Amino acid sequence: MAREITGFSNPLVKRVRSLREKKYRKAEGLFLAEGLRILTEAREEGVLPEMLFHAGATHPLALELIDAIEAAGGDVIVTTPDILSKISGKDNAQALVGVYRDRLTPLAALDRSSADIWIVAQSLRDPGNLGTILRTGDAVGAGGLILIDDCVDPFSVESVRASMGALFTQSITQARWEEFLPWLRGGAGQLIGTSLKATQDYQEPAYQSPSFLLVGNEAQGLPADYEAQCDLLVKMPMRGKADSLNAAVATAVMAYELLNQRRKTS
Amino acid sequence: MAREITGFSNPLVKRVRSLREKKYRKAEGLFLAEGLRILTEAREEGVLPEMLFHAGATHPLALELIDAIEAAGGDVIVTTPDILSKISGKDNAQALVGVYRDRLTPLAALDRSSADIWIVAQSLRDPGNLGTILRTGDAVGAGGLILIDDCVDPFSVESVRASMGALFTQSITQARWEEFLPWLRGGAGQLIGTSLKATQDYQEPAYQSPSFLLVGNEAQGLPADYEAQCDLLVKMPMRGKADSLNAAVATAVMAYELLNQRRKTS
Repeated sequence: MAREITGFSNPLVKRVRSLREKKYRKAEGLFLAEGLRILTEAREEGVLPEMLFHAGATHPLALELIDAIEAAGGDVIVTTPDILSKISGKDNAQALVGVYRDRLTPLAALDRSSADIWIVAQSLRDPGNLGTILRTGDAVGAGGLILIDDCVDPFSVESVRASMGALFTQSITQARWEEFLPWLRGGAGQLIGTSLKATQDYQEPAYQSPSFLLVGNEAQGLPADYEAQCDLLVKMPMRGKADSLNAAVATAVMAYELLNQRRKTS
Repeated sequence: MAREITGFSNPLVKRVRSLREKKYRKAEGLFLAEGLRILTEAREEGVLPEMLFHAGATHPLALELIDAIEAAGGDVIVTTPDILSKISGKDNAQALVGVYRDRLTPLAALDRSSADIWIVAQSLRDPGNLGTILRTGDAVGAGGLILIDDCVDPFSVESVRASMGALFTQSITQARWEEFLPWLRGGAGQLIGTSLKATQDYQEPAYQSPSFLLVGNEAQGLPADYEAQCDLLVKMPMRGKADSLNAAVATAVMAYELLNQRRKTS
């Protein structure tokens, strides 16, 4: 049975709103996702929110989602557009906000043979870039995203929004480099870094599966000792005055090269 | 001679700070760019700010920049880190903020033969995407960015920041579709759209120079009648559950395909 909440000072509203901050997400193991498109994407992956807030949803897909959540024992809360805005932090709140259990996959649980492409990001700082990389990972059929060292929280509102639902289709793993490297070397897999110092063009190598595409921090790129561990260091052509690409863009250009090579050989 | 300003209520500080809003940028024909890297990139392109604010710059490149601005008759203002933060809207302000004359190139002034690739964006809404597309344009040696219909302001602080200096290396043109199309058809040029409805893979065609890569709005994509005007409609492979890429990512994947084809034939 749906509950109704119309008070701004309701403790549940305050608790859910607090999930916009990383420390509360971490403490609760929960995060927020907004909008019918993303919540439907999650449901198609078999992922339902523990709680759903809406302000009188009427879309058939929203009604199906509500039914599914209630059937699974989840909480559906009807509230006001103002409270939805307060929860989401957006002036123009999406008509649905879901509260999800966070979805980290331990390194040891990854099945590297399940995909040809894996994306590994090191100290990524921008939540929009992280979400965009997840979305690209989904598009190229990657297995998931492995976050190395101090990356921005993948469950931030901005990251979830930028992922456009790919947060629910891609596995997400967090690991230190010292954990990742022995795991990687314990099985098949080519570690591919992009570097301005590389001499090999990114279209030259014949990449092997599974490929682990290593992406560095937006400002610093990869640390030299991480580059030294790569099986291949490649560079993309740069015809301009500037010397770099946005991290999510560079990841996508590389990931499509990997996908295109597979398309030609399969 | 450098001036010193230490008061928050100084009219010039207020005026410059107002350039964070589009209506004041438009009224003044000025915009803000921040940080030594971007300002140096601009200087290398021969573009100097009309005013420069700093809080005691010591970097050799900053000192060179200050000399160049003063030699050109520009205004150099020494201020406090707090006022710099107030101007830039960032807690941790970059050590330099420049005030630049906006740099729009009329459609009629574009020399389409000067580059193989031109990027055309229609109703782009996200300033980060716009800046990222400029940065990609620089990387692939594009001639410039043509903004069609109601795009976000390319001179917003967010867009300038995301462009990482490419705002100064790429020409920027604003035009209505009704102006752009006759101009395009008045000379050589292939109009290439990406569309989920396309049947042709983006690696199939042999693209011709100059290529005009048409990118649609983040949420809606291209209007059907714009797609109908394209010489080629292509799609990128999508192996995932979601059905789309971030607009700046899709632009980059296409732009690198165009560049790669030219690299193979030249």
